[in-house]
Amino acid sequence: MNVKTLEWIGGRPGHVRLIDQTRLPGEHILLEVREAEAMHDCIRRLVVRGAPAIGVAAAFGLLLGVQSLEERDREDTVGRVRECAAFLATARPTAVNLFWALERMCARATRDYNAARPIIDGLFEEARLIYEQDREICRRIGAIGAQLLRDGSTVLTHCNAGALATADYGTALAPIYVAKDQGKRVAVYADETRPLLQGARLTAWELTQAGIDVTLITDNMAGRVLFEGKIDAVFVGADRIARNGDVANKIGTYSVAVLARENGVPFYVCAPLSTFDPAIERGEQIPIEERGAEEVAEGFGRRTAPLGVRVYNPAFDVTPARLVSGIVTEVGLIERPNRERVEAALRRGGVLA
Amino acid sequence: MNVKTLEWIGGRPGHVRLIDQTRLPGEHILLEVREAEAMHDCIRRLVVRGAPAIGVAAAFGLLLGVQSLEERDREDTVGRVRECAAFLATARPTAVNLFWALERMCARATRDYNAARPIIDGLFEEARLIYEQDREICRRIGAIGAQLLRDGSTVLTHCNAGALATADYGTALAPIYVAKDQGKRVAVYADETRPLLQGARLTAWELTQAGIDVTLITDNMAGRVLFEGKIDAVFVGADRIARNGDVANKIGTYSVAVLARENGVPFYVCAPLSTFDPAIERGEQIPIEERGAEEVAEGFGRRTAPLGVRVYNPAFDVTPARLVSGIVTEVGLIERPNRERVEAALRRGGVLA
Repeated sequence: MNVKTLEWIGGRPGHVRLIDQTRLPGEHILLEVREAEAMHDCIRRLVVRGAPAIGVAAAFGLLLGVQSLEERDREDTVGRVRECAAFLATARPTAVNLFWALERMCARATRDYNAARPIIDGLFEEARLIYEQDREICRRIGAIGAQLLRDGSTVLTHCNAGALATADYGTALAPIYVAKDQGKRVAVYADETRPLLQGARLTAWELTQAGIDVTLITDNMAGRVLFEGKIDAVFVGADRIARNGDVANKIGTYSVAVLARENGVPFYVCAPLSTFDPAIERGEQIPIEERGAEEVAEGFGRRTAPLGVRVYNPAFDVTPARLVSGIVTEVGLIERPNRERVEAALRRGGVLA
Repeated sequence: MNVKTLEWIGGRPGHVRLIDQTRLPGEHILLEVREAEAMHDCIRRLVVRGAPAIGVAAAFGLLLGVQSLEERDREDTVGRVRECAAFLATARPTAVNLFWALERMCARATRDYNAARPIIDGLFEEARLIYEQDREICRRIGAIGAQLLRDGSTVLTHCNAGALATADYGTALAPIYVAKDQGKRVAVYADETRPLLQGARLTAWELTQAGIDVTLITDNMAGRVLFEGKIDAVFVGADRIARNGDVANKIGTYSVAVLARENGVPFYVCAPLSTFDPAIERGEQIPIEERGAEEVAEGFGRRTAPLGVRVYNPAFDVTPARLVSGIVTEVGLIERPNRERVEAALRRGGVLA
């Protein structure tokens, strides 16, 4: 991938370099992030976003917060790791990968080391694994998802679950990249994804960079293009998946799922097992982040609604499992997901005993 | 209504004063339009928009084109009326009210006059009737639609089919204004309606002006608020209705209809009989205007998509009659519309023999 969403630079001590996604597509700016506080800010402001990338960013953020604590004792170091993780966990509430990555780092820190230096060594190793595994998982999701695409297929996607949402090929866009590598011609319709336009700014940008045929539409045109028979399959990512297969993802995903069903088009969710939250039974238990009114009322540097108008701005919605044709994970396709099939996949991946 | 969308000023000769809707809500600018060419431009650029208002604007535009022809002979005058009508008819392709108003004016011009002056007298009378009848029709649609609302109801609407789309109370918003006059508290969720944000700029503005409780959402949140049970009924306008009850309206209307059905919420279309096109059997025969890429890719005075990205920008979609709970017209509610019921209403209104 020639898009480097985020990476660790310079060994130890080191820092993180990431693309400022709030500036795309107008400007391609790389930020150098050197402190956990700055990483918290990047996650909160969507400078880095996308559930898998948020997981990697959180692990890297924790390294930034603790990499210079080598002179402390074990208890002190573990305390500081937990404190820093708790702080980073407050950056955003919906994407479970954030908590998953931080818990994995905390578990590593408390394993069986008796001094600061080996604890920090372990955290560096763990963050590297999270990063490498994210890349490996993207490729596997891509390979499995690409089997659902024929030469000449047209895919509709919502928001950005591509390279910019992960450390590599993405989740929802990975099947498209792999299909292209296999010589299949695949075209994409990208919902612009209001209010923050991740589809227009990020998906259209990265697909153009990769030489893939992409057509931009507003969110309310998705129904029309499905109705017109232009779409063979819908691929979206996920921010959190409940044990019964209900999917929290970017606001508007539920609408696309309903419209796909109405028009007989399969609706696939692409997500690593780290996006599943076995502690959540059903979608309605997933906390939904509400964001500020200004994103809707003046989202483009210009006020587009009357002053003082009330705005409702939920950042995510929940798509019931019954609307999902399949969830593409790194351990295989979960067809028509339900609790039993999700649990089977989680056991196969070692997430559940 | 304290919002004066458009009106004829100054007798004869006179001109048209209208609100420049492209500048709302930031600026409330009144334009003085003195030539048919300028009115064509206003309709094309959406300075004045909304199917019923486009009808009135076209009739007024024709007056502007012919009001100074009083010295000509009959044939010359009728020729000029037809020429001017043909020109105005090219301003936009989907709203049938445009053609309906112009045909009505042409029919009046060819009635039984034998000189220019009485022809032009007749056209002034006809344009006044179109304007007055639009106001009367809004009130009747409002009264019939208000019976569908209880005290405490919450309505979802898409685009702007309010005062700014007509000469008075609007169509889709008329039931809300009438319900308020009756002392019912009715709240509204308004889809912002990309790409041109008629919901954010116009609906939120005029409802705020009228003291009605309005909450703005992006289009892709409509599914979520329906799913959350926040909505009691959907009210939208129409640009053209086929003989079988299929409805062409602003892009995104079809999606709202599917989502309303999925969530058991009634979906009502409010439209005068002039919006029905008896010559069109089914929705797929309605021509759908495609507009420029820049509306999607740089709609807010700032480029929000990569340069050169392909854009698909249909301005309307078609909602099949089976998704419509009822069409509120000035001659009554057409419940679960189909060809037979639509034709009965058109006969009741004298549109069909």
